[in-house]
Amino acid sequence: MKILIPGIDGYIGWALALHQLSLGNEVCGIDNFSRRKNVEEMGSWSAIPIESMDVRIKYLQEKYGDKISFFEGDLVNSQFTNDVMKKFQPDAIVHLAEQPSAPYSMIDQDHTIYTQQNNVMGTLNLLFAIKNYAPNAHLVKLGTMGEYGYEAGLEIAEGFFEIEFRGKKAMIPYPRQAGSWYHWTKVHDSNNIMFACKLWGLRSTDIMQGIVYGTRTNEIIDKKDHTRFDFDESFGTVINRFCSQAVIGHPLSIYGAGGQTRGVLALVDSIQCISILLDKPAEENEYRVVNQFDEQYNVAELAQKIQTAGNKKDLNVQIQKFENPRLEKENHYYKADHNILKELGFKPTRLIDDEIDMMLDDLITYKDRINEKKDSIIKFLKWQR
Amino acid sequence: MKILIPGIDGYIGWALALHQLSLGNEVCGIDNFSRRKNVEEMGSWSAIPIESMDVRIKYLQEKYGDKISFFEGDLVNSQFTNDVMKKFQPDAIVHLAEQPSAPYSMIDQDHTIYTQQNNVMGTLNLLFAIKNYAPNAHLVKLGTMGEYGYEAGLEIAEGFFEIEFRGKKAMIPYPRQAGSWYHWTKVHDSNNIMFACKLWGLRSTDIMQGIVYGTRTNEIIDKKDHTRFDFDESFGTVINRFCSQAVIGHPLSIYGAGGQTRGVLALVDSIQCISILLDKPAEENEYRVVNQFDEQYNVAELAQKIQTAGNKKDLNVQIQKFENPRLEKENHYYKADHNILKELGFKPTRLIDDEIDMMLDDLITYKDRINEKKDSIIKFLKWQR
Repeated sequence: MKILIPGIDGYIGWALALHQLSLGNEVCGIDNFSRRKNVEEMGSWSAIPIESMDVRIKYLQEKYGDKISFFEGDLVNSQFTNDVMKKFQPDAIVHLAEQPSAPYSMIDQDHTIYTQQNNVMGTLNLLFAIKNYAPNAHLVKLGTMGEYGYEAGLEIAEGFFEIEFRGKKAMIPYPRQAGSWYHWTKVHDSNNIMFACKLWGLRSTDIMQGIVYGTRTNEIIDKKDHTRFDFDESFGTVINRFCSQAVIGHPLSIYGAGGQTRGVLALVDSIQCISILLDKPAEENEYRVVNQFDEQYNVAELAQKIQTAGNKKDLNVQIQKFENPRLEKENHYYKADHNILKELGFKPTRLIDDEIDMMLDDLITYKDRINEKKDSIIKFLKWQR
Repeated sequence: MKILIPGIDGYIGWALALHQLSLGNEVCGIDNFSRRKNVEEMGSWSAIPIESMDVRIKYLQEKYGDKISFFEGDLVNSQFTNDVMKKFQPDAIVHLAEQPSAPYSMIDQDHTIYTQQNNVMGTLNLLFAIKNYAPNAHLVKLGTMGEYGYEAGLEIAEGFFEIEFRGKKAMIPYPRQAGSWYHWTKVHDSNNIMFACKLWGLRSTDIMQGIVYGTRTNEIIDKKDHTRFDFDESFGTVINRFCSQAVIGHPLSIYGAGGQTRGVLALVDSIQCISILLDKPAEENEYRVVNQFDEQYNVAELAQKIQTAGNKKDLNVQIQKFENPRLEKENHYYKADHNILKELGFKPTRLIDDEIDMMLDDLITYKDRINEKKDSIIKFLKWQR
């Protein structure tokens, strides 16, 4: 299978490339290195150092020869996107080339516009390139459980659900009530992709993913294999950020009451899920939605887990509550279906406590790097006027 | 009241400006003249001639003095949008500055990207400008009944509806299942506006409007008052296009079975509805959705009406069915609520048959102009691959 990975330089992109190459598949990466630049703009860097893309690709070529290739460029450039699609002719595309941070999208007008522009126009160009040059390819797009939002007070279905209204029944899209400009781009993209499948007969799987955590996959063994690991307020997600705080003696920072419940998933299992979906693609004309997470916890429970794990390593982990700069309910009903991936064969392979233990060990090695950029962990970027 | 009208050069924009000025309100217009350029690109022009904006504004200044002002520019330019908002400090904004044609958005990749870019980024900049400089102003955005789509098989609520799912009830957004890249931009905009109201406490009314028709309002009396009137395949909506075909002896062109049912509304009543909404604005923090149409007909019924009216004027109107280039159901269940505007005081003032009669009279005057560009009426722009 030939897999195009826009966003190969990112956290999931790199780990996915390693895994797919290890399976014997052919991988072509695209990246514009915006993640590196945007994290630098936030005054931070990857806790675990990563090499330049030149070095990374050479390393993979030594192992996998011409099964790995790379193009530097931006999906927002339609000519570039068309050219790569025409040249590589993928069987599948895993679209990881979006600006993925809610806080970053909320900084100011420029960051909001950049995020919506980058994500919506990039995805549109990708859809046209698929239609033009690889109409049978399977588009896997990474969305987020945050597209549904956390405030409807209903159980969350997987993409679609049947409702009855005034005596008529219909299967309709589950309502999207996102909570940041970033999350809304994912909704806009979901809608555009759903329409492209209907209009052009494309096949796509849209993944509503929970929060991913971890430093390792089965292919991340030595230094050169490592994927980036962010811990700043914008690009570090909650478990990764808490683990980074724990190793430098910074209190774990809970926003508000800490009752925000989220689905979570180890990096290795995220890669497993994506790989299952690649092996069992959507049908022609099908827009398939899956909810991709393993367990669910609230933020306070996650902090507790990391405190317990850290204290076993004598890290003396403190937890501190801060005023919540975000616009979100701090306590809410949360129950979400996640059956489709299980039916397709997904079996979680990691226990969260073991994974946190391994993460702390990995991060202790890079304690100095986290310390050097520790001001980036809490910036209190306000979401409301 | 001070009303900002981005898109003042358009069909509804100009008519709304005339009406609001006649009421004694202050109007500031914005336009980048994209409608004129885009219709020209389609090989067409307004059936009823309109003057340059310089001449139009001078005409209004003679009547209304400094109650009318105008800025040429593009909402996609955030600096421009912020500057106008800061300078004019409106009480209300009626946002008519979107690329409004579904067929135009479906021509090719460039037209899709242009439409989504123009509409989504323009609206985002408008939201930021309101937040920055007129946070208490009421944003009235023109959406379309097409945001809901026509294929759910459910009665259509006004924006939100209560459903029950697995024993829990919630008020959720009515599902949007649009049918063109253009219609999806309106959905993206609706979502972004809904979020801005929640995030920043803005007040907005989102109008899901049916198809507007007509040549006249109470303020359109002599030549200089006329608003543009499009009849080409992209920018001419169904009733206006059929009337234009009738006066030049071109068969009325029904796509497919003609069972596509749509809500419709006379231009003068569209202006009435918008004016009611301006007088009764949404509350702070409120995202209010209204369905704005008067009657509903299917395309074949509309053709019949125009044939009957035309034949009374000896136009010998023929009706012809063509293969449908669009992606749409040609027969479908359709029942949509439209109660909120009635509750606010909307009373339709025109009978569709009288309005069509008047339209035909107006258009007969400009028969030669329609004939000159008659090739633009049917171009069979295909929507599917």
